[in-house]
Amino acid sequence: MKAEVITIGDEILIGQTVDTNSAWLGNKLNLIGIDIIRITSIPDTKARIVDALNESIQRADVIILTGGLGPTQDDITKNTLAEYFNMTLKRNDAVFSRISEYIEARGLEMLQKHAQQADLPDGARVIDNLNGSASGMWFEKDNTIIISMPGVPYEMKAMMADVVIPELSRSQDSEIIHHTTLTQGIGESTLAGILEDWETRLRKSGLSLAYLPSPGAVKLRITSKDLTNGSSLVKQFAAELDQLIEKHIYGYGDETLPLVIGKMLRESGKTLSTAESCTGGFLAHQITSISGSSDYFMGSVVAYANEVKTGQLGVDIDILKQHGAVSEPVVKQMAEGVRKLLGTDYAIATSGIAGPLGGTEQKPVGTIWVAVAGPKETKALMFRFGNNRERNILMTSLSGLNMLRRLIKKALPH
Amino acid sequence: MKAEVITIGDEILIGQTVDTNSAWLGNKLNLIGIDIIRITSIPDTKARIVDALNESIQRADVIILTGGLGPTQDDITKNTLAEYFNMTLKRNDAVFSRISEYIEARGLEMLQKHAQQADLPDGARVIDNLNGSASGMWFEKDNTIIISMPGVPYEMKAMMADVVIPELSRSQDSEIIHHTTLTQGIGESTLAGILEDWETRLRKSGLSLAYLPSPGAVKLRITSKDLTNGSSLVKQFAAELDQLIEKHIYGYGDETLPLVIGKMLRESGKTLSTAESCTGGFLAHQITSISGSSDYFMGSVVAYANEVKTGQLGVDIDILKQHGAVSEPVVKQMAEGVRKLLGTDYAIATSGIAGPLGGTEQKPVGTIWVAVAGPKETKALMFRFGNNRERNILMTSLSGLNMLRRLIKKALPH
Repeated sequence: MKAEVITIGDEILIGQTVDTNSAWLGNKLNLIGIDIIRITSIPDTKARIVDALNESIQRADVIILTGGLGPTQDDITKNTLAEYFNMTLKRNDAVFSRISEYIEARGLEMLQKHAQQADLPDGARVIDNLNGSASGMWFEKDNTIIISMPGVPYEMKAMMADVVIPELSRSQDSEIIHHTTLTQGIGESTLAGILEDWETRLRKSGLSLAYLPSPGAVKLRITSKDLTNGSSLVKQFAAELDQLIEKHIYGYGDETLPLVIGKMLRESGKTLSTAESCTGGFLAHQITSISGSSDYFMGSVVAYANEVKTGQLGVDIDILKQHGAVSEPVVKQMAEGVRKLLGTDYAIATSGIAGPLGGTEQKPVGTIWVAVAGPKETKALMFRFGNNRERNILMTSLSGLNMLRRLIKKALPH
Repeated sequence: MKAEVITIGDEILIGQTVDTNSAWLGNKLNLIGIDIIRITSIPDTKARIVDALNESIQRADVIILTGGLGPTQDDITKNTLAEYFNMTLKRNDAVFSRISEYIEARGLEMLQKHAQQADLPDGARVIDNLNGSASGMWFEKDNTIIISMPGVPYEMKAMMADVVIPELSRSQDSEIIHHTTLTQGIGESTLAGILEDWETRLRKSGLSLAYLPSPGAVKLRITSKDLTNGSSLVKQFAAELDQLIEKHIYGYGDETLPLVIGKMLRESGKTLSTAESCTGGFLAHQITSISGSSDYFMGSVVAYANEVKTGQLGVDIDILKQHGAVSEPVVKQMAEGVRKLLGTDYAIATSGIAGPLGGTEQKPVGTIWVAVAGPKETKALMFRFGNNRERNILMTSLSGLNMLRRLIKKALPH
């Protein structure tokens, strides 16, 4: 099955919005065996939408459109599609009630333009939007499925997950077997070196392998399209991979480090706190991005100023002066300090120069200390990342979480 | 002048890489008056590249291609273009020396695949790449300019800045005037209602308007292509907009709320701290995403557990029991508590049910209290957002920052 994505919106073409929907769609469709053969971005202009549709229908079995479904004057996707498919707009009562409830729940007034969002092409199948007022629409023409969804990422993603992906999967007759192993703290080239022989054998067995790098992490995805032996072959090579790079693996599939950590803490009945300088709250944010994290995460002291490091976390003022805030003894005292202050079993602390300013010859931008403290020991590591502030904050958080994962694992009964 | 962008690479279509080049190009070309009318992403396949080129040449005056110029087997853009334009590849001595120097400077060995990068289509103009080994190429056919550059963002951006933008600017005689006004805390539909008359007059004057919504914020972009009166018309309508929705406007152009707050705090010599329950560190993260924020941001207490709210922030235990953590008196005590604890001029506090779990009938998921405390007063507001955890955290942070902006503004001398 071949798919095309068409994203609609002036804001994409003038560069005000980066189109992240297409990459997300490409990833999800790829996992169910649907190849995206083209992504097209066009402005909110009727003629451009019609041109793009006419072209894509020639090439694709499925066309996914996002954007242009809002309540304002520049949103013309719905009317253009109704005309394109020769349908009239008709008030959908179920959608109208849902929108009314949605608007009411937010304490807003139901306006004419909200109501109009319940007028949908008569003949299109409606895809309910549980997170907003613009419904999705499902059309079929010349053996091609055409699906239109809002451009707001979380609205589109929910509709894909609830309706579109399950239905498209059903109409697919090939199946793809995937296994994804997640690593942290080891680069793509180093991994490729360690895995060279394994990878050669894997490819000879008819499987394929993808390295999917992101800052601080590399995902390894093994794929088979062989329905007979694929499953057992994938299992066999995944188990070998576990042996080869065991200490770098933090999880599998869709897991994330905060999720894995959360599961470990919950299962062992332990608690966590953080003391953050250079990560500035991002580490706590990652941990609390997991629903239910309040069961094991007590809190964080974001100690951006040195006075907070000494005043709240009990960092020794002389040691701070002697070694500087970005140093092993200070980051260890921060971890131990917050562990004691908030009375938790474990703690993570970060202190570094996130940049782009603040570097020195001895401690250039990207110099970062991370410590983890537990009931038995405190460990610290120094990292040297790059010049990009955002990336440094992300890499530091992931490193801290992975250090904690190893510390907890070490303490578990074997 | 009309332009199209074609990005080439399998990694874009399977969603491994988000195409950020197109947005960057759209923004830069737009500023010199070139409209991007379409962005197309295609895989590293000869037939797909030829198809896309054939189509774009019909529509565009300028086509910018990125990607597929690397030294590996899957990079086929250069050979495809040479064939497309009926050119043979010829060793370019100047490029060869530059690549040799580049490879040598990195302590690497000059390999066959590096040398081949100096073989370029005979007849194309070469655009030097000072940051890598893949040269850019400039072709002209049927009155269309076709420019091919590497997909590595910083290589492409340098070539655009040094060569492509200056040359294209020279051949342009029109210019586009933009003005963007940034709002927070008011929905797109409500805005559209308030602005209806103004918007109608604006459109009648030949200007265009775009609503660019993102969670918690809406950008309003006014555009004119009229070189004679455009600038004064845009100014006039922007000034009217300031009057109509003054209290919702937090900035203009590329500004962000953390940047605007940072500027206000720096200029008035004031300091800030935060006490976060439901935002879990994200508010501090947004504030510290600004380089140099350590000048005014002292730190945060992420009080996820109630013990941290009472123990560290001094929230009264009886009030907490009586009203619950998600309540006006508690969030006010949190703001005042952290302000005192970290000795800052201002403080923001958040407490709410981010969801998806933890809601009750009285306080459903999305119920959020935010407080701001300053030298003279403490203010609190309740919000009812939706069911999406990530979005609730983001909206709460933006609301807190905007409440702080208003509080600081009120305290400024008029």
